[in-house]
Amino acid sequence: MSCSAHHRNLKIENSLVIFCDLQVGFQHNIQNIADIIDAATFLRNSARLLSIPCLFSEQWPERYGHVVEKLDPADEQVFSKRTFSLMGSPRGSELVRSKKREYIVFAGVQSHICVQQSVLDLLANGFSVFLVTDAMGSRRRIEHTTALESMKQEGAMVSTTEAIVFQWLRSVDAPCFDAFQQLQRPT
Amino acid sequence: MSCSAHHRNLKIENSLVIFCDLQVGFQHNIQNIADIIDAATFLRNSARLLSIPCLFSEQWPERYGHVVEKLDPADEQVFSKRTFSLMGSPRGSELVRSKKREYIVFAGVQSHICVQQSVLDLLANGFSVFLVTDAMGSRRRIEHTTALESMKQEGAMVSTTEAIVFQWLRSVDAPCFDAFQQLQRPT
Amino acid sequence: MSCSAHHRNLKIENSLVIFCDLQVGFQHNIQNIADIIDAATFLRNSARLLSIPCLFSEQWPERYGHVVEKLDPADEQVFSKRTFSLMGSPRGSELVRSKKREYIVFAGVQSHICVQQSVLDLLANGFSVFLVTDAMGSRRRIEHTTALESMKQEGAMVSTTEAIVFQWLRSVDAPCFDAFQQLQRPT
Amino acid sequence: MSCSAHHRNLKIENSLVIFCDLQVGFQHNIQNIADIIDAATFLRNSARLLSIPCLFSEQWPERYGHVVEKLDPADEQVFSKRTFSLMGSPRGSELVRSKKREYIVFAGVQSHICVQQSVLDLLANGFSVFLVTDAMGSRRRIEHTTALESMKQEGAMVSTTEAIVFQWLRSVDAPCFDAFQQLQRPT
Repeated sequence: MSCSAHHRNLKIENSLVIFCDLQVGFQHNIQNIADIIDAATFLRNSARLLSIPCLFSEQWPERYGHVVEKLDPADEQVFSKRTFSLMGSPRGSELVRSKKREYIVFAGVQSHICVQQSVLDLLANGFSVFLVTDAMGSRRRIEHTTALESMKQEGAMVSTTEAIVFQWLRSVDAPCFDAFQQLQRPT
Repeated sequence: MSCSAHHRNLKIENSLVIFCDLQVGFQHNIQNIADIIDAATFLRNSARLLSIPCLFSEQWPERYGHVVEKLDPADEQVFSKRTFSLMGSPRGSELVRSKKREYIVFAGVQSHICVQQSVLDLLANGFSVFLVTDAMGSRRRIEHTTALESMKQEGAMVSTTEAIVFQWLRSVDAPCFDAFQQLQRPT
Repeated sequence: MSCSAHHRNLKIENSLVIFCDLQVGFQHNIQNIADIIDAATFLRNSARLLSIPCLFSEQWPERYGHVVEKLDPADEQVFSKRTFSLMGSPRGSELVRSKKREYIVFAGVQSHICVQQSVLDLLANGFSVFLVTDAMGSRRRIEHTTALESMKQEGAMVSTTEAIVFQWLRSVDAPCFDAFQQLQRPT
Repeated sequence: MSCSAHHRNLKIENSLVIFCDLQVGFQHNIQNIADIIDAATFLRNSARLLSIPCLFSEQWPERYGHVVEKLDPADEQVFSKRTFSLMGSPRGSELVRSKKREYIVFAGVQSHICVQQSVLDLLANGFSVFLVTDAMGSRRRIEHTTALESMKQEGAMVSTTEAIVFQWLRSVDAPCFDAFQQLQRPT
């Protein structure tokens, strides 16, 4: 599967977007969290416009609360977990597999804990993973940047929200381009 | 083709320079656009002096206008496009192929949208691509730096305007060295 | 051995932590030494909680003194050396091998001298090495960052203290999770 | 030859140090030139102490003058050139080969012109090259950092002056260690 993994092969039809642990309880101690939520919201709204499936994990929701409202997840898209890797959650793992998408666009927090452990499991299971670097973060900057390095060492690809979304669109003649231009972009 | 792709094999005879979307309509919202235009102008003037072919793409020119005057393109070197990748334009793709040059020196904007999608298509078509990092840019810095990472992950090589031009010249005894020294360099 | 070396395979059962030359005599001339000691202390306390073996090297202790008190090493965990690589010390080399752990979590100073020479020897001997980048340092920043690059070029993996420790824990249901949450983390 | 190229195999016996174009005429327009000369001087003095051969290139000396005095080269170690690559100079190329050393420790200016073209030629000729990043530089920072990336893409290894010198020494019991400690180090 990873042999065909290339940025240019990322398409509307083969993509699944995962938002990892963007919960209210992580809002105060993550660097640049407002920018991360803005970028994730743009990604989420673009995916909705293009009918690309999305999933949202919640780490220990009894303690850290639910996904932030701006991301507006549907109930059936959300799953909780207690392992740091979302593949350690039976329901999470089943949901990911049920979408039958080989390219996973990955956003969320914290880069060096739940993101990293989830991404490494996804890669080991044969998925191609695109890290949306402007929609990810950690408490400390060195944790975020080093986690990106770690995941790249294991085969993850790096990208940003706009790069992903314009790769899906490919042309100003894309059917939904006018609607897309109304979306608020990260500043 | 990519087996022979090495910085040191870049020569006057095997190079084609592409300037991507350096249009008036992108002037106000790209970081460091003045420096990017200066570096691109130095590259363009050096290529002219050495008779190296150049091409200039224009994204949706009805909306974003034409190539900036400083780059002084000839009519037959310019083509318009509506796909973000210039290889999606039939005339663009044909022009690139018609030059029969395997090494492509690539400059322009935005790094994470039109540049990235074009470069990935060029690499997939067997061309070797040199990214002129000081003549490229995006709206936000993270988009530019992450796009460079993405393209490197797919096999692009990185360089700067002077590194490219001095690689073409190779010696202070190059025939046009005196004329070359009169060109204004990026500051 | 290195074929199975992946961040996700790092486990309590296959890990050995090495603290290189964190001695009192190096306290004043290493950049960010207070943060490095804090991160190393968190790593050391986490390893103790999880019963993961630790070793502490001392470079030329007659001149540079002993390991800082905060790290609280047991006598049988400490060895001295005069070669910059700890694998050049017969007792150090024997201690490392005696633990029969293939994954080595490596912290300490200076990144570009004793850390680098030790890590390259460990890699050449078939160990997998995880560099704990926030618990490492050099006198000058360029020496630290370039040393990280050098060790990555030879196959070392990069990480940070929390990434390592949460990889060991894997879940909030880990037996010692409550005790772990009492530990002071690096700020 | 490059199969055995590893940082840890760098030894007094297999090393040749090349100082590229550290001439008086380049003193005013290179970023951090004072630090670069200091680091190069420490490297040069260490190499002399350890009897490691050194070579010094001069680019177009009629225009840019001779090697700076601090480096104190012997006449038979210096050669001039007009090509940017020192392997383009028949005498330079012959001198490099005559030393019969496979590991080349490389310092000098400018990173993106003469250094880069020389290093790529050396790599293509089967030498292993260690870039001494704190003893190298260019007029602009982006030119230096991108040139390092380019050379790494072609197989060059990165290091710093102290990392190289302590790798040569390997132990505080090295015969000349006391004399070495008298040398002035880069600040």
